[in-house]
Amino acid sequence: MEKFEVTILGCGSATPSHRHYTSSQVVNIREKLFMVDCGEGTQIQIRRSRIAFAKINHILISHLHGDHCFGLIGMLSSFGLLGRTAPLYIHAPADMWNILEKELAFYCSELEFEVVFQGFDPAVIQTIYEDRSVRIDTIPLKHRIPCAGFLFLEKPVADHLNREMADFYKVPQWDFGRIKDGGDFTMPDGTVIPHSRLTYPADPPRSYAYCCDTEYNPEMINQLKGVNLIYHDCTYSVNDVERARLHHHSTAVEAAKTALAAGASHLALGHFSARYDDESILLREAQEIFPDTVLSKEGLTIPVN
Amino acid sequence: MEKFEVTILGCGSATPSHRHYTSSQVVNIREKLFMVDCGEGTQIQIRRSRIAFAKINHILISHLHGDHCFGLIGMLSSFGLLGRTAPLYIHAPADMWNILEKELAFYCSELEFEVVFQGFDPAVIQTIYEDRSVRIDTIPLKHRIPCAGFLFLEKPVADHLNREMADFYKVPQWDFGRIKDGGDFTMPDGTVIPHSRLTYPADPPRSYAYCCDTEYNPEMINQLKGVNLIYHDCTYSVNDVERARLHHHSTAVEAAKTALAAGASHLALGHFSARYDDESILLREAQEIFPDTVLSKEGLTIPVN
Repeated sequence: MEKFEVTILGCGSATPSHRHYTSSQVVNIREKLFMVDCGEGTQIQIRRSRIAFAKINHILISHLHGDHCFGLIGMLSSFGLLGRTAPLYIHAPADMWNILEKELAFYCSELEFEVVFQGFDPAVIQTIYEDRSVRIDTIPLKHRIPCAGFLFLEKPVADHLNREMADFYKVPQWDFGRIKDGGDFTMPDGTVIPHSRLTYPADPPRSYAYCCDTEYNPEMINQLKGVNLIYHDCTYSVNDVERARLHHHSTAVEAAKTALAAGASHLALGHFSARYDDESILLREAQEIFPDTVLSKEGLTIPVN
Repeated sequence: MEKFEVTILGCGSATPSHRHYTSSQVVNIREKLFMVDCGEGTQIQIRRSRIAFAKINHILISHLHGDHCFGLIGMLSSFGLLGRTAPLYIHAPADMWNILEKELAFYCSELEFEVVFQGFDPAVIQTIYEDRSVRIDTIPLKHRIPCAGFLFLEKPVADHLNREMADFYKVPQWDFGRIKDGGDFTMPDGTVIPHSRLTYPADPPRSYAYCCDTEYNPEMINQLKGVNLIYHDCTYSVNDVERARLHHHSTAVEAAKTALAAGASHLALGHFSARYDDESILLREAQEIFPDTVLSKEGLTIPVN
């Protein structure tokens, strides 16, 4: 199966903590790397993770709270020091350019690569990236300021050829592509060998939803139906639900309810408040509702399947 | 002896490395805390150091390269999250306000404390802070852009009273202050007891010079004469001296020569290039010229004496 995985670089909330860095992660889909959020210290975590800076061509920013974007100017500056020449694409709420443009002019006037800023409106679903194998849509979230999640959607791939069957029916090699894409094979005597006999079904397309930071948000469930993995805001325990309301974040229970309603396969909890010395309380609360839940932590790589 | 010490938060150079954070340190003089430079990740290091955020009232920025100031906006934001109300003084090259003002307006419009920006001209010696017990002067350095070091000067303190002698000569308690400040004591019979008999000499005033980033800079030696501790740019080994020239940094040998010429008591090397897996080569090079040298490292606290 092609690679599709998420590496957590930071999964703490804004207040500095001993245990966590602020939000950042890298989504690797078939060796295309997308950085999602870029809190302070992200470049330090990238260095520790041994992910190659040069493989990152897209940085997605969910919203303009510092714990999700204060590491960006440092990343851009370090890309410059490391000799980058390839364009770097930043997908972020459109407002961000108002300050980032000034920061780049002030601190990074000598970059030898192009920073391509592509602003989006966090209030509506938008496709912000698309290629042959993947599409990325924004997910409108409910937070104190405009905020979007990101839905990574693998595109369907061709079925696998059953090589033994193909040889048995003497399918010529130049016809393999058409058959993998759904075609039947007609033998010289006119007999039609159906596609299903010549192939194994392709792996179903996978998807990953990054939903941080958000209140409990039933409106997004429809967009997330059948998602393989959700990374969800889990700033607070259910015991601190008033605090969650005040700061427009979710509890562990709400993260689990979302995963359950969406019919997700797996849930990763993140964006932990510094107030919990032991986050296993959050895990237990979520697992009572949605058993297939893990706690994020720095350095953890979670496969999407 | 009153506290006077330097805690290293980051002592790497700009390129991200596994071993070091970018530049920041905290100078504690008699429980007054001054942060010197504020590279990305400084607030993380402060949290690890267990230094209280609330005790920091002054942040000094040497120059406007990102590895010395990209952590500032995060520090200010976190001060806000932590409920700070006391003014925070930033002493930095005057240009910095052009971008910091915009960043504060964009990201930190809700701070409940005042950010007092006090710009200086890095090209000349300026006193940027002074109180009853300490003075801080800038040290003009030679770098790729305007850059200043900082000289922390303890002010002379009163001599210590020799309590046994004071009792023997029946010096009244209300007269202690005058005698510690240098006065003699005249007994009722007219006999004068000299100051020196009634006191122990005060500890001599101490000083600390932060000289990062700079080329070898003999012009500053005069200002540093007799300093107790120098923290000096030691980005490169003498084997990479061309690189040092190219980037306007110093070698370990040049750091040691500076300490020797200044008649310093101790030298701390810092601002290490990521190219050295083993920094003991830098230490050896410096110690051949100036034996009382240490390598900085994150978390290390160096007393000034």
